[in-house]
Amino acid sequence: MLSKSKISEIAALHQKKFRESSGLFIVEGEKIVSELLHSNSDVVEVYATHDLYDKYVNQFENIHFTETHLFAKLSAQKSPSGILAIVKQQQQHFDVSSLKNKITLCLDGVRDPGNLGTIIRIADWFGIAHIICSNDTVELYNPKVIQATMGSFMRVKVVYTALEEYLQLIKEQNIPIYGAILKGENIYQNSNNGEGVIILGSESHGISKTITKYIDKPITIPSNLLASEQSLKHQPDSLNVAVACSIICALFAVPHNKFL
Amino acid sequence: MLSKSKISEIAALHQKKFRESSGLFIVEGEKIVSELLHSNSDVVEVYATHDLYDKYVNQFENIHFTETHLFAKLSAQKSPSGILAIVKQQQQHFDVSSLKNKITLCLDGVRDPGNLGTIIRIADWFGIAHIICSNDTVELYNPKVIQATMGSFMRVKVVYTALEEYLQLIKEQNIPIYGAILKGENIYQNSNNGEGVIILGSESHGISKTITKYIDKPITIPSNLLASEQSLKHQPDSLNVAVACSIICALFAVPHNKFL
Repeated sequence: MLSKSKISEIAALHQKKFRESSGLFIVEGEKIVSELLHSNSDVVEVYATHDLYDKYVNQFENIHFTETHLFAKLSAQKSPSGILAIVKQQQQHFDVSSLKNKITLCLDGVRDPGNLGTIIRIADWFGIAHIICSNDTVELYNPKVIQATMGSFMRVKVVYTALEEYLQLIKEQNIPIYGAILKGENIYQNSNNGEGVIILGSESHGISKTITKYIDKPITIPSNLLASEQSLKHQPDSLNVAVACSIICALFAVPHNKFL
Repeated sequence: MLSKSKISEIAALHQKKFRESSGLFIVEGEKIVSELLHSNSDVVEVYATHDLYDKYVNQFENIHFTETHLFAKLSAQKSPSGILAIVKQQQQHFDVSSLKNKITLCLDGVRDPGNLGTIIRIADWFGIAHIICSNDTVELYNPKVIQATMGSFMRVKVVYTALEEYLQLIKEQNIPIYGAILKGENIYQNSNNGEGVIILGSESHGISKTITKYIDKPITIPSNLLASEQSLKHQPDSLNVAVACSIICALFAVPHNKFL
């Protein structure tokens, strides 16, 4: 039986300040929790209801049977899934030199948890190993971010940093810095050679002024590319940042794509 | 002063059955509501709090001053924006012949409102004029769909239909039918000529069996295209359907892209 104090302790992890003080976070849902088994994540405890407890009792060391009504108190989800894990945060850091000969994403003030989670999932899909986030980007361990990654947080390194200083170091390594802005070079004309940092800005303000000056290669996704003449008449104003990220990644693969 | 019965009448529009019986839906937020002014949408009434009432009182005919605490009862949002419009649903339909020489999206059972809204926004960006939805796709007029479109619902025609019959008609017009599946032709090798219907399946089950048989040209987005050798080690299992949609749209523009 789960004690009241244990329940509060776990439910407290829905809040950033308790995640920070404890260094722990919550992972929910069978698909993602089961992926933890094959990752190098440090799983502290698992809580599961009936069937899911029976299914995973022999796989996780520290798994606890939890009644459905108590599980609902632990869960950060509207429709609790029946299994959640308490996992240790990993302090991520990577040297700028490890970004040589790679494509890396850089987020300047992305605030929506769903967007960050989706961007991590996109990075994972394309085989991008690193994401650099400004300190005002939404926290990786926010439960909505973790859920939206669908497990990709286990495979992509996400680091939070003072962006200006970090970009200065990247410049010193001669790694090209791309930035998605409104009036840049047409992304279809880009000729990257598989190395570069791609900066994406916040949902409402784009890339901040102080960061824009680090961009060597401004890039833009043109609109109306699939319009037939009749329908080409409107000017949509923006794409969701995760959608823009996926298009840029897909088109960055064109110049060195063996299939084209 | 807003009467109690009027409040319930508007709040009822958060529910599908009342949207269907009334033929109305809610549009919220200054950005989207202000776009209604330049659209052919049929705005029945607008409700706005203090500043926003003052700002729009001369622009909308049927605008009502609404106290903040009452506005919160009308709003479907957690953080009400202060302005919302009640708009008449438009019965969309389009002949299959109007899809000749165009790229069209087709959704088979997309359930998440955010995904549908984002897909409509992507279609708008790329200049795609039509989206065909199976009858079990989430309803266009769901407030979460409308908000996620960021106004694009005013520019993209979305029709709900018995998909099998409709695809049969498309086949008879010799319009190619593409479908995003796990083992199709590499999307980077696709050589479309600006005509075709692209089917995307549901978040959890993909394209249903009965629909799969209408696909002439199965397509797949390859993974790990941006991986450097060291990091190419994992196999992510899926992309979000809206993300997949954006990548397919971006790459469909490659064969007939004047910039390449």
